[in-house]
Amino acid sequence: MNVTLELPHWLDEALAPFGGLDTDETRMAAVIDLARRNVDHRTGGPFSAAIFETETGRLIAAGVNVVVPANAAIAHAEVMAVAAAGQTLGTFDLGAGAPTSLFASTEPCVMCMGVTVWSGVSRLLCAGRDDDARAIGFDEGPKHPGWVAELEKRGIEVVRDLVRSESIAVLQHYLDTDGEIYNAGGDHA
Amino acid sequence: MNVTLELPHWLDEALAPFGGLDTDETRMAAVIDLARRNVDHRTGGPFSAAIFETETGRLIAAGVNVVVPANAAIAHAEVMAVAAAGQTLGTFDLGAGAPTSLFASTEPCVMCMGVTVWSGVSRLLCAGRDDDARAIGFDEGPKHPGWVAELEKRGIEVVRDLVRSESIAVLQHYLDTDGEIYNAGGDHA
Repeated sequence: MNVTLELPHWLDEALAPFGGLDTDETRMAAVIDLARRNVDHRTGGPFSAAIFETETGRLIAAGVNVVVPANAAIAHAEVMAVAAAGQTLGTFDLGAGAPTSLFASTEPCVMCMGVTVWSGVSRLLCAGRDDDARAIGFDEGPKHPGWVAELEKRGIEVVRDLVRSESIAVLQHYLDTDGEIYNAGGDHA
Repeated sequence: MNVTLELPHWLDEALAPFGGLDTDETRMAAVIDLARRNVDHRTGGPFSAAIFETETGRLIAAGVNVVVPANAAIAHAEVMAVAAAGQTLGTFDLGAGAPTSLFASTEPCVMCMGVTVWSGVSRLLCAGRDDDARAIGFDEGPKHPGWVAELEKRGIEVVRDLVRSESIAVLQHYLDTDGEIYNAGGDHA
């Protein structure tokens, strides 16, 4: 049996402008734009992520949240981006060649914080705070209270609040368009 | 772009005896046997997981660790089992129909603990302890110190140490056969 998770049909085309981004801010703004498109196309939740080569800024792969359309609780943006990047590079260790950075439109939930550790990236850059996701009803799960320090202890630099207002705007846009807050289990949310 | 994660070719056949298991202990022993086969076939790490319908004991899906062969940091046993179960049931919420249980040959790492919360299962049953995985060199990541209580707070019953000695035996078997301890990033392990 294979597990196949489809990314939205519009994603490849949306990555065309990613070649010419030369700062962390412009890269993050482009990543957040993927979350906005995911909301507008109604192809998943308001979250996006991407893996870039740290030195050159070359895009390795990107992902968006497709939990509901892919019938997959695991299909958060960071999981999709890390899995797609592994396929692209041909290794589970995204730091095996050149150092890489994970950009996330919102700080990772507990699962995606774990994905960050296992991925081999050496930088995690986040726009929105986990509290911003909680504010619109998404559960972030039982994260270690000192998760940022725990990542840094493992050699992963964490950059927070990069273009945060744009991420918050997309989360609000999701609410305004009646997006589904899809936490599994009625009594867990 | 699609993300495709292949489970080992031998897995479907190995699930044939799963129909006649009528206790949690026999189910867990069968799940752990998948981890042993994964070691013997050299198709991944010494970890396995499965989703059962809680009331009937019907198997929904199973998974094993395929991180190295699938080039995917996310491809832990629990992730594969939850994703496969979502495909089988046609929903991201594995508790949407009948209540379901996640059996794991070893207590989940931080990522898979998060997967457990998002999966919609209402029971998590574990054989080996996370300390047993650490004892052979696998990092379990920055888990919330009170992760069991955190899961129970979210309505997920946690059963530990079920057939634990069998799980430890498989972990030791992996070491004895020179299995790869594959933590990403030389300095993170």
